[in-house]
Amino acid sequence: MGKILRVDLSTGKITYESLPEKIAKEWIGGRGLGVYLAFKEIDPKVDPFSAMNKAYVVTGPLTGVNGIPAPGRWVSVTKSPLTYTIHDSNSGGDFGHGLKTAGFDAIAIEGASETPVYLFVHDGKAEIRDARHLWGKDVHTTTDLIIEELRKELGDDAEKVKVAAIGPAGENLVRFAAIMNDKNRAAGRGGHGAVWGSKKLKAIAVYGHETPKIADMGKFREVIVEMMDKLKKNPTTAGGLLKYGTAVLVNIINSAGIFPTRNFQTGVFPDAEKISGEVLADTLMDWEKQKTEICWGCPMGCARYTVVKDSPWTGEGGGPEYETIWAFGAQQGNANLKAIAKANFLCNELGLDTISMGNTIGCLMELVEKGKIPPEKLRGLKAKWGTPEAAVELVWRTAYRSGIGDELAEGSYRLAKKYGAPELSMSVRMQELPAYDPRGAQGHGLAYATSNRGGCHVRAYLIAPEILGIPQKVDRFATKGKAELVKEFQDVTAITDSLVICLFTQLAPIWVEDYPGMLEGVTGFKYTPDELRKIGEKIWNLERAFNVLSYGDGREYDTLPPRLLNEPMPEGPTKGHVVRLNEMLDEYYKVRGWKDGRPTRAKLEELGLRWVADLLEQENLLPE
Amino acid sequence: MGKILRVDLSTGKITYESLPEKIAKEWIGGRGLGVYLAFKEIDPKVDPFSAMNKAYVVTGPLTGVNGIPAPGRWVSVTKSPLTYTIHDSNSGGDFGHGLKTAGFDAIAIEGASETPVYLFVHDGKAEIRDARHLWGKDVHTTTDLIIEELRKELGDDAEKVKVAAIGPAGENLVRFAAIMNDKNRAAGRGGHGAVWGSKKLKAIAVYGHETPKIADMGKFREVIVEMMDKLKKNPTTAGGLLKYGTAVLVNIINSAGIFPTRNFQTGVFPDAEKISGEVLADTLMDWEKQKTEICWGCPMGCARYTVVKDSPWTGEGGGPEYETIWAFGAQQGNANLKAIAKANFLCNELGLDTISMGNTIGCLMELVEKGKIPPEKLRGLKAKWGTPEAAVELVWRTAYRSGIGDELAEGSYRLAKKYGAPELSMSVRMQELPAYDPRGAQGHGLAYATSNRGGCHVRAYLIAPEILGIPQKVDRFATKGKAELVKEFQDVTAITDSLVICLFTQLAPIWVEDYPGMLEGVTGFKYTPDELRKIGEKIWNLERAFNVLSYGDGREYDTLPPRLLNEPMPEGPTKGHVVRLNEMLDEYYKVRGWKDGRPTRAKLEELGLRWVADLLEQENLLPE
Repeated sequence: MGKILRVDLSTGKITYESLPEKIAKEWIGGRGLGVYLAFKEIDPKVDPFSAMNKAYVVTGPLTGVNGIPAPGRWVSVTKSPLTYTIHDSNSGGDFGHGLKTAGFDAIAIEGASETPVYLFVHDGKAEIRDARHLWGKDVHTTTDLIIEELRKELGDDAEKVKVAAIGPAGENLVRFAAIMNDKNRAAGRGGHGAVWGSKKLKAIAVYGHETPKIADMGKFREVIVEMMDKLKKNPTTAGGLLKYGTAVLVNIINSAGIFPTRNFQTGVFPDAEKISGEVLADTLMDWEKQKTEICWGCPMGCARYTVVKDSPWTGEGGGPEYETIWAFGAQQGNANLKAIAKANFLCNELGLDTISMGNTIGCLMELVEKGKIPPEKLRGLKAKWGTPEAAVELVWRTAYRSGIGDELAEGSYRLAKKYGAPELSMSVRMQELPAYDPRGAQGHGLAYATSNRGGCHVRAYLIAPEILGIPQKVDRFATKGKAELVKEFQDVTAITDSLVICLFTQLAPIWVEDYPGMLEGVTGFKYTPDELRKIGEKIWNLERAFNVLSYGDGREYDTLPPRLLNEPMPEGPTKGHVVRLNEMLDEYYKVRGWKDGRPTRAKLEELGLRWVADLLEQENLLPE
Repeated sequence: MGKILRVDLSTGKITYESLPEKIAKEWIGGRGLGVYLAFKEIDPKVDPFSAMNKAYVVTGPLTGVNGIPAPGRWVSVTKSPLTYTIHDSNSGGDFGHGLKTAGFDAIAIEGASETPVYLFVHDGKAEIRDARHLWGKDVHTTTDLIIEELRKELGDDAEKVKVAAIGPAGENLVRFAAIMNDKNRAAGRGGHGAVWGSKKLKAIAVYGHETPKIADMGKFREVIVEMMDKLKKNPTTAGGLLKYGTAVLVNIINSAGIFPTRNFQTGVFPDAEKISGEVLADTLMDWEKQKTEICWGCPMGCARYTVVKDSPWTGEGGGPEYETIWAFGAQQGNANLKAIAKANFLCNELGLDTISMGNTIGCLMELVEKGKIPPEKLRGLKAKWGTPEAAVELVWRTAYRSGIGDELAEGSYRLAKKYGAPELSMSVRMQELPAYDPRGAQGHGLAYATSNRGGCHVRAYLIAPEILGIPQKVDRFATKGKAELVKEFQDVTAITDSLVICLFTQLAPIWVEDYPGMLEGVTGFKYTPDELRKIGEKIWNLERAFNVLSYGDGREYDTLPPRLLNEPMPEGPTKGHVVRLNEMLDEYYKVRGWKDGRPTRAKLEELGLRWVADLLEQENLLPE
């Protein structure tokens, strides 16, 4: 079965554990396995920056399996310093595949080192190495230096080393610092980079020669042909993402009037066209380098590589994706695509989540607009709508906690609260919302509000049915039936993230009915789609239970920024709408078998989680 | 007599010493005293970043004496990590005066702390305090936080606390990191901030109630009236500096064809007018805040405070001075004054010497122009002449050693040498040259070449006689007589820096003939002008002897970048000229009584420095 590497950074002790087959079957891998390990091993009340927090790096049974659609991703799990929830964040690139070749399915990182270290994981072994010389270095330099120093041991094979690293933002405990791998790929959300920083873990380098075993080659071949067929038939997965990247969404979402503009003051950005995927493809793309950015084994190739040759923002690097374009674009009232790309390059180098960074800058701009920020705090910087030059400076300041950046580094919620206006933080559970205004996508609003890891579009991408018509179109303004739909998406996506395969496969659509074949082919384990749904539901309930134990999660947290609930969209195709959350929430609790946002004993026992019910009961957190 | 505070950061031991009257009389104070202490106590071969290096904070007998012209300055002395010479750097503001009120004439800092600390010096005592919470913070935040935390002890009197601090650049051992005091004033040159950083000394805060004693009030009153008269009669010191700041020089120096442009490729910058003091005064100045920036007790008021309200570079803060305008302007082919101001604000906040920073960026631009830098090093950044946006980014990168900034942080010489073109570093003794092309000011060229602290305009400001006609005009292209003149300026300026009073008093002109009166009035010590000249010469010789012991200083270091010696100025009023250094250097050694750039026993004994001659002889470094 699978192998888990356990590293205690406080003591330097390294142990190698076998993953029991029962656990692997029960929790699949990736997010499911990570969440299970985190729940079992992390005290939910722990300070996320204390040495008692733990961080997991997890692959899934399909990670690194050549032929599986988009199997290059890996998952980080920890208790988040941004949300105080249990939190998983996944990332593409080559690192996940690299970890498998190094001989491990997962790494559990415990304790905290006194001095900076990195982990070198190779061919079934691991070493803790000194990283004092890497501390303070940006992500790109760190990656290059690690590969260079391994060249002495590995020769040209060092090129095969894959590195996940934190930048200065992680070191400086920015609450939304990312873990970056392969330079430009981010396990972005939730501040996992800051958890590594608190442990003085600068990087993990992986290298090896293992290849995943295929349990049933006949079954496997049959299934992957079928999956590839699906991907080839859908225009988005068969070419749209390659040509335009995720930014193909800019015009689509703006046309629906839900492209959040100026900190969600409206859903229509008049200059959306200027920052669209189409313009990006025509202007800034470096197509040669783009090829090298595509995730390992991915047939879709949404990754971008761009070059800004003139303007005040020259540079080059990975991105920008749709979310980044929005966060540094419409969210800030900025239509300068070059500046957006530049901000993205810097976030990659410094190790910042672009969504939280851009959203938080937009929040600052509204705080400034509303006169909430004492002018001396800004040292003359004009942080107004449509001033991308200020945004670029604020990226530097945040990563290094310089001046006002020290407050942005806390995230939009803590920032806005400090200045007496928490309602101006566009966040759920203190995590910044992404690039869809839910007033025009009611189900998506429910998905935001109930997300276990805080404001997020990839727990249940209701934009697919509500806007894109995948797998079929549903009325985006209706609330009826959305609770069931959100639950289906949440539970299935928990499995997608556990396999691990890329979420974009859902667009094909490759759905839970397609998973048993892939799993059986690779692992030999047999599941029905409904068994997998049940495991997804179990993961979802376990996450929620952690949050209940952490800070008493429940109905009061299953909500949205008041603007989205009370201020009708002022214009455009979504004009007049708010999120009618109350119409959906009770129904959601009903379909979840929850009471007021908390799992009941009946539900937990049905899912085989009696031990979790007992824990909640001990803390008087189990609903009556 | 005076009091010296000695702090050993390795052991935490604090001792209070009396300054023997003999030493005070012999070395005056300020630079003279600092150089004497440094020579006695620092092994000249020490690594400047080792705990064995020491750092001195020194005031002079005239520091903080109300009525003395421009007595607000203080001096830092150490072995420089940029030049490996003995190095003094002085700074204005209120801190020097503050140190006197705290009851000390000097602080000797030894050893290195394991964790960040700051020093609180108050009313004749000192404490080492924890500064872990300040590490990583920029200069302005650090200053504010220290004053805020002292408010708990001192109440509103905390407003009287003066702080000298390093920024991230000092922490990151940037070789030209400054010590900043009162937020915007810099002991800028030579990387003293990095020495503090290597000792984990984040700041020194001073506070107290002592006032300097006046030995002879009658004499004192008579003398200061006379000095004020001189300052009032000269248009520059009586109003020119207040109105236009030091930037009044931009047009003057450009008109002489010696305004170094594009890394000293020419001496004429066609856009000089756009970055002149006159334009600065008309556009960016905040005259209300300027008043609060003027150094303690200064009647001239050259300090600037500027606000950039639009452009990509919004911000506000201290500066820019002439040197900064040049370094980020003509040196980089940039005519955007707003961008220059912005770069200045950032250098102040991050703790960087603007001259070395701007000069080094210009050097990078020429290295790029000449194809010396592999493109991938720049990550797409277009560092070309006239791209101030790149310059602003490079300030961030240098302070934090991010990407190419890690190499800029080593200074222009090490940068250019690494890429195979040391001749493109416009430096002397590895310290970047300032804003005068010496091809049109031969004496100034000799002053650069022979400067004991490396490329510098304030060891002997020959621009005064050669360009400004102060105290009288001399032929700037002539070499004859320049050796004597340079020696006179070097020796007298060593006293100016030891008193300590501002160098600009020399423009009045207040010269060595005026010093005995001031000294007698304040201290009661009697000197003749020639006795003071001799002390200046002694300081100069002691500095040179340190350098000889450090790295074998001598003739080979008394030189200029080959461009200035071999490439005739291509255009303008200085067209066709090079620095005819050889015509002056032998004469200089003759008037100094040196041989090949090294003090002889005869000269050293004449100056009462037999013990220094013995030291040199032991090391076989005394000329035959």
